Amino acid sequence: MDLTAIEKPTLLLDEGKARANLRRMAEKARRLGVRFRPHFKTHQSAQMGEWFRQEGVRAITVSSVDMARYFAQAGWDDILIAFTANPRQVGAIDELAGRVHLELLVEASEPAAFLQDHLSHAVDAWIKVDVGNHRTGIPVEEHARILDLARQLRGTRLNFRGLLTHAGQTYHAQGVEQILTIYRDCVAGMQHARAALVRGGFPHCELSYGDTPSCTLAESFEGLDEIRPGNFIFYDLMQWQLGVCSAADIAVAVACPVVAKHPESGVDESRWRLVLYGGAVHLSKEVLSIQGRPAYGALANLNPAGWGEPLEDASLYSLSQEHGLAQLSAQQAAGFQAGDLLAVLPVHSCLTVDLYREYLTTDGRRIHIKH
Amino acid sequence: MDLTAIEKPTLLLDEGKARANLRRMAEKARRLGVRFRPHFKTHQSAQMGEWFRQEGVRAITVSSVDMARYFAQAGWDDILIAFTANPRQVGAIDELAGRVHLELLVEASEPAAFLQDHLSHAVDAWIKVDVGNHRTGIPVEEHARILDLARQLRGTRLNFRGLLTHAGQTYHAQGVEQILTIYRDCVAGMQHARAALVRGGFPHCELSYGDTPSCTLAESFEGLDEIRPGNFIFYDLMQWQLGVCSAADIAVAVACPVVAKHPESGVDESRWRLVLYGGAVHLSKEVLSIQGRPAYGALANLNPAGWGEPLEDASLYSLSQEHGLAQLSAQQAAGFQAGDLLAVLPVHSCLTVDLYREYLTTDGRRIHIKH
Repeated sequence: MDLTAIEKPTLLLDEGKARANLRRMAEKARRLGVRFRPHFKTHQSAQMGEWFRQEGVRAITVSSVDMARYFAQAGWDDILIAFTANPRQVGAIDELAGRVHLELLVEASEPAAFLQDHLSHAVDAWIKVDVGNHRTGIPVEEHARILDLARQLRGTRLNFRGLLTHAGQTYHAQGVEQILTIYRDCVAGMQHARAALVRGGFPHCELSYGDTPSCTLAESFEGLDEIRPGNFIFYDLMQWQLGVCSAADIAVAVACPVVAKHPESGVDESRWRLVLYGGAVHLSKEVLSIQGRPAYGALANLNPAGWGEPLEDASLYSLSQEHGLAQLSAQQAAGFQAGDLLAVLPVHSCLTVDLYREYLTTDGRRIHIKH
Repeated sequence: MDLTAIEKPTLLLDEGKARANLRRMAEKARRLGVRFRPHFKTHQSAQMGEWFRQEGVRAITVSSVDMARYFAQAGWDDILIAFTANPRQVGAIDELAGRVHLELLVEASEPAAFLQDHLSHAVDAWIKVDVGNHRTGIPVEEHARILDLARQLRGTRLNFRGLLTHAGQTYHAQGVEQILTIYRDCVAGMQHARAALVRGGFPHCELSYGDTPSCTLAESFEGLDEIRPGNFIFYDLMQWQLGVCSAADIAVAVACPVVAKHPESGVDESRWRLVLYGGAVHLSKEVLSIQGRPAYGALANLNPAGWGEPLEDASLYSLSQEHGLAQLSAQQAAGFQAGDLLAVLPVHSCLTVDLYREYLTTDGRRIHIKH
């Protein structure tokens, strides 16, 4: 890419890394015998969707009705909206269900009854279960509630498909072993619930499982029918800190101009502050705590082919609307002046990407993002 | 407004509140004899800009070159870009400076020299000083550095205008008295620096001051030439927690559909969790700590005329990409079910507004946002 043409915060995409992340996950799903229904909320791009098609993907996951419409327009016809169905959008859902094979999430009797009454087209319905993330869904151990809801769906336009979960608690795990323990416990919980459904007269109950940490690290998907990771296409600082990916796997970064430079006088004479054009509206305010300090991203050098490894002993410790503040050693800071560029590897790539209209690939092409 | 037409997270604007906030600040600036150059990064709307014109505003502040172009297109011809001038955008800056009266910030010799060499049109230049916020700018007590930079500007296309600061440390103050102490100290520091400039041969040195907490609470703007508050047009939860505004002054909220409801079993039987369609991409991940708990917004009831006071004993404690999790008492939660709407008052209105393309006013009109 032509670095001289980068004037303001710009979302960069390393296609080689993204395609390698994609190929690895697609091959793993094939090898381990599960349906791969990747979550497109991370990249939100019809053009990038074609890369998935080239890997054999035919069924996708999205997180909103708008996103489902966008990808339907791009030719996808098997779409799961992995967000508890919102009764207020029943009209838009029904319109879409008339055009593509649509799958929804339900988790309570009254909203499901509302959909049953108001949809004119058939959809598949997954019961959302909570495997310990405590975000939403019927607790997976409450078999009676799950069975009641499945019974309510029987013979209606909401065709009961199975149980679906997102084990988001893996994002709070301490390392790889704990992620795998969570994964195994969650799958076991879902299998128990499925057994209860089979006993209750639902022999065809599928299990659909999400979250990039589990799907990246698990050695087996035994017992599952479908996986729905999304973030893996880019990964990010959060996944790297969890031990899920290497820094070299991270496939997006934000190029940020340096606009000023100051010694941290009075604080630590050996440290310098670089002021970046790159703030909350360019990165999102997602934050990690690394060694007890806030981290809004990791810093790396840029070159025409991409970006390097994260700089050690450097932190992006504060973001306001348009400013980012980085702290570096005096020696590191000596290499930068106003007018230079730095790469910021995002804490949470899904939220960063959502702030942009396009990617600039490291080989200089522009790729459109939904909006 | 027609609440039945709200299907998904929607940015609401109470025009009456925003206009009252605007009138109060405009009148105060007139009464206290300073130029009112409001920051338009908060609302980012050409249509709302007309409300400011109706209050006599002729000069505005923005935070990026893109925003300056947008408002120039809307007929504004006196624009300050309150972000240290980014050398990489010198072409766009110069093009704009050929069309409108443009004002820039500089804070170091080399980037200023670069602008002097590359701009073909004259601009006004403010020296950015750091009054203790430690974001960027020359420390206000370093009179020699400030004077050197002013001398460098003399007789060039960068016409030295004065000293400019943003006292962002008021956002970390403990209450109103501390904000006023910070304000007085900052103004005193700027006046000392101005005196040094006057002695050094710069008799016409203006002082420009930002930040909504100071500008809202100060009883006097003596010594200042210009104020540049922005957030005051909407205020938000952060300003309310600081004691800068009342909850009733907050002029924007996000209407969020309720999609699910769960007892907080195992945690606290008297508490319920509402799952909102309204996450980080609808609110931003800006967070406050209120009584030791994270708060991503305040919850309020919606009605066709707007929203009510924030619900007591209710919190929005977690956000993921599309989900918001609210905790309420069992009694409060009994009033809500999937399909209902709740209003979320944002933590930081500037960041929330930046995520949208339009406002829906509480009297049912749509107002466009830059993008």
